[in-house]
Formats: sequence, structure tokens, C-alpha cells
Amino acid sequence: MDAHFAVLTLGVDDLEKAYRFYHDGLGFPSKGIVGKEFERGAVAFFQMKNGPVLAVYPRKDLAWDAHVPVGAWSSTELSIGYNVKDAAEVDSVLELAGKAGATIVKPGQKAFWGGYHGYFEDPDGHLWEILWSEQLLPKD
Amino acid sequence: MDAHFAVLTLGVDDLEKAYRFYHDGLGFPSKGIVGKEFERGAVAFFQMKNGPVLAVYPRKDLAWDAHVPVGAWSSTELSIGYNVKDAAEVDSVLELAGKAGATIVKPGQKAFWGGYHGYFEDPDGHLWEILWSEQLLPKD
Repeated sequence: MDAHFAVLTLGVDDLEKAYRFYHDGLGFPSKGIVGKEFERGAVAFFQMKNGPVLAVYPRKDLAWDAHVPVGAWSSTELSIGYNVKDAAEVDSVLELAGKAGATIVKPGQKAFWGGYHGYFEDPDGHLWEILWSEQLLPKD
Repeated sequence: MDAHFAVLTLGVDDLEKAYRFYHDGLGFPSKGIVGKEFERGAVAFFQMKNGPVLAVYPRKDLAWDAHVPVGAWSSTELSIGYNVKDAAEVDSVLELAGKAGATIVKPGQKAFWGGYHGYFEDPDGHLWEILWSEQLLPKD
């Protein structure tokens, strides 16, 4: 297989709430909830810079589409790493996410690997790690 | 927040097995399991084309690092969308993944939104959707 992917879809319980969190709260650009012409097609896409699209799609519809059972909420299935330019920005992003409705599970602090980081969970329990590392600075 | 992310980390139970699946089975380039100098730092990174790094990291270590409980396996937390150039390639990628140890949960078939797709689960139950869509062709 070629080493790439085009979309990262997160399973959610409440599509409208997830859309509001990512669009209104975090400010990710989106055309809104689309696909409503299909019975189980409603989804929201967020266009990320230089990378895959982020999508939110109901867990029950993902289960139906993929032919798998609906799973329990589980925060250790994935973590999305969001790199920033300095430690202060780790704290400010965590603060912004908290105001948008995220749960700050680990406030900004020194990471064991030498950088500075913290974690929040989105309204569906998906982890985001906000991190500053000299080895992984944002490109712009 | 800026609309980007740098890393997608998948929580796994057996790091060596997950590494072999993605590196030896799917052929994703990697420097191998790194970070062993830290007690809970062992991780493998896969460099993806034009996008975030994919990582596999033990669920128990992710839970420890993020200050959250270890969750149950759950296939409806995420789906990784892998776009290909035609329907035949959907089938061939699913076949390759199956040989590498994935579970084909949905064989290649027409998708409700008009394209052609199928799903597999990696050895830790993470969904990959292999899809062909005229609206989402690979760039190269």
C-alpha cells in the first residue's frame, strides 16, 4: 500500500454538537453538515491544511456502513497530535478547547520526552495532544 | 485553532505486532520501534506522504500519558479513509490487507454515496475504509 490517507473520520454520538465543537469552537473551516440526502449519510468535513480531511460521522452510521457493531466510547483508541510553536501556545490552545466544550484531561506540562504538552478530549472522548517539540515545529 | 494536525496515533495492545502489520504487511516506511530509552516511550512512527505521521503506541501507555483510563477496544471511534484510483484497486488493497492480518469486515462493493468501497480492521480493531470516488482521487 502507498503510505497515505485522505480522511480521518471520528465516530460521534451527536453530529450537530460535534460540528459545533470543531467549527464554532475550534474554528475549523467546513461547509457544514452535508449528505443529508442519504438516509445514513449526514456527515461534516473539515478541510485541514496540507493534510487529510477531518470528518465527524455518527458512530451508529459508521457501524452500519462498515458492518461492525457499535462500540463503547473509548479514549485510548486514538490520539491526534497537534503541534505548536512554543509552550505558551500549548496552554492557550488547551484554554480555547476548554472554552469550546472540551475536557482538559492533562493540563500543559513538561513531557517525558523533553517537550511540553497537554491533552484534551473532544465532546465524544477523542484525545487531542497539544504539543511543543523542537523536533516537530509547525511548518507555517 | 489552526486547521491542521501532525500525528495520528493509534492505541494498540501489542506494539511489535502492530508494527509488523503496518511496516511488513502494508509496507509503510518506518525507522522501527523507537523511544525505548523511556520507560513508557516505545512507539513506532510511519511517515505518510503529504500528511501527518501515523503512529502506533500501546493503549496502556497512552492512558498513562494522557491521564485517562484504558478503554475497551472499540471499532466505531475512528475510520481512516484511504482513497484509490479505481474500484479494482479497492479490491486489491483489501486483499493485501487481509494477507497482512487484517479482518475484512466489508468486502469491496458499491457505496451508498455512489463510489465503491470496503472496510478492514487492523489487528487492534481500527477501521480503514478503502474507497474509490471520482471526487476524491489520489493526487499521484
